[in-house]
Amino acid sequence: MYSQSTQIRVRYGETDQMGFVYYGNYALYYEVGRVEAIRSLGLTYKDLEDQGILMPVVRLESKYIQPAKYDDLLTITSTIDTLPDRFIIFDVVITNEFEQILNKAKVTLCFRDAHSGNQIRTPSSILQKLKPYFS
Amino acid sequence: MYSQSTQIRVRYGETDQMGFVYYGNYALYYEVGRVEAIRSLGLTYKDLEDQGILMPVVRLESKYIQPAKYDDLLTITSTIDTLPDRFIIFDVVITNEFEQILNKAKVTLCFRDAHSGNQIRTPSSILQKLKPYFS
Amino acid sequence: MYSQSTQIRVRYGETDQMGFVYYGNYALYYEVGRVEAIRSLGLTYKDLEDQGILMPVVRLESKYIQPAKYDDLLTITSTIDTLPDRFIIFDVVITNEFEQILNKAKVTLCFRDAHSGNQIRTPSSILQKLKPYFS
Amino acid sequence: MYSQSTQIRVRYGETDQMGFVYYGNYALYYEVGRVEAIRSLGLTYKDLEDQGILMPVVRLESKYIQPAKYDDLLTITSTIDTLPDRFIIFDVVITNEFEQILNKAKVTLCFRDAHSGNQIRTPSSILQKLKPYFS
Repeated sequence: MYSQSTQIRVRYGETDQMGFVYYGNYALYYEVGRVEAIRSLGLTYKDLEDQGILMPVVRLESKYIQPAKYDDLLTITSTIDTLPDRFIIFDVVITNEFEQILNKAKVTLCFRDAHSGNQIRTPSSILQKLKPYFS
Repeated sequence: MYSQSTQIRVRYGETDQMGFVYYGNYALYYEVGRVEAIRSLGLTYKDLEDQGILMPVVRLESKYIQPAKYDDLLTITSTIDTLPDRFIIFDVVITNEFEQILNKAKVTLCFRDAHSGNQIRTPSSILQKLKPYFS
Repeated sequence: MYSQSTQIRVRYGETDQMGFVYYGNYALYYEVGRVEAIRSLGLTYKDLEDQGILMPVVRLESKYIQPAKYDDLLTITSTIDTLPDRFIIFDVVITNEFEQILNKAKVTLCFRDAHSGNQIRTPSSILQKLKPYFS
Repeated sequence: MYSQSTQIRVRYGETDQMGFVYYGNYALYYEVGRVEAIRSLGLTYKDLEDQGILMPVVRLESKYIQPAKYDDLLTITSTIDTLPDRFIIFDVVITNEFEQILNKAKVTLCFRDAHSGNQIRTPSSILQKLKPYFS
């Protein structure tokens, strides 16, 4: 299991007139979470893309438990439970400064060759970094 | 069962550098779909909110099947399969001009009293409009 | 002078907790306005891009006069006052259903060759369509 | 003169298919810049709003000089040149890690009483914090 946490602060433009973060904007938070989780492994998603590997999201499940509010300092914890093969799954938990759980999500991505568009298996550069966490 | 379709055109600002609609922006499309579905019933979500009823999203499940592209004219079909009680569930299917299914989602919302913040049952104004479709 | 109007409805996700459209989201409305203005000429921005012509925004000036609200049906009027050469300028006026002016903007874009990245003059395909309006 | 810098990293969802940050998303960066500038003064915009003071943007001028790219670590420098009275003006400069200037903006905001909606002068809590920088 590999787990990593990062923090973000809610922007005004991410709220809606209900006074909370708009439900669609959590996707940006999940993105920041997994990008920083990958960076902590010593890779960057940017480099993967420069090498011709795309990682589109194929499935998203979100549970909105408590609303996130403007200026909240959120902790986004992204966990990879299973060594990825054809898919990589991030389990995300978002908490506020009071350690209340606001949101939980499961984000499933695949890997695609940027040139052919074909789905590929998890690149070895990622597997090598992840394997020590799954032994 | 109540079902309604509406069309939207993909905006440039909704794409990302992969060349497709960003996965978080589908939430806006689901919103347009359910808002227009409610309008077709002869109600508006705006009026509900003016009457002190909020409809926050509590759960979202999305499957990204084929990518939506810039300038695509999408059809968003929103279906209510079950007469709502404590929750209202919209099943959404997004297709392009070639009738390819791009995305499927299930969006679950609840109803809240804007003043107390308490969850309430489906307002009778909505139930009255929906009942003819479930007899 | 070439002028064209199009309508959009304000989405919930475009509002912020002040209860109005977030100031950054007007950029999406200007985009819809100019894209539809180009489509009305018999061209599409998508086709231009497929032909290797990019149109990045180089300058934006916005005046926020009255706030746009959720579910407002806005009219976006985009006007080209001067036949474009190295730059194309859209003057935008956004009004609501009561014909109140909510927002005015001036959006300046240039043309770039997608492959070289170099700035180019206005493509002849656009000039040919615009010239009848400037004689 | 009061000046403050903060850093943000470009999110994937903020890019568009041109491969750069979408022109409308800079507004979020300006917002983060001014919110952190206010926080550095020992105030928060959130507290101002909780006290019934809104700060809507009334005017925006942006120059897009070089494109910001995905994963860029941007420095947003927000400067108040003039002690605010009926308006507060932030001059914003955005640079990348190579100290290239990507974007310059001037954002003008006013102050409004949340209850009456009326425009008010700069609150004394802000003026007190700013005055030492303008003597």
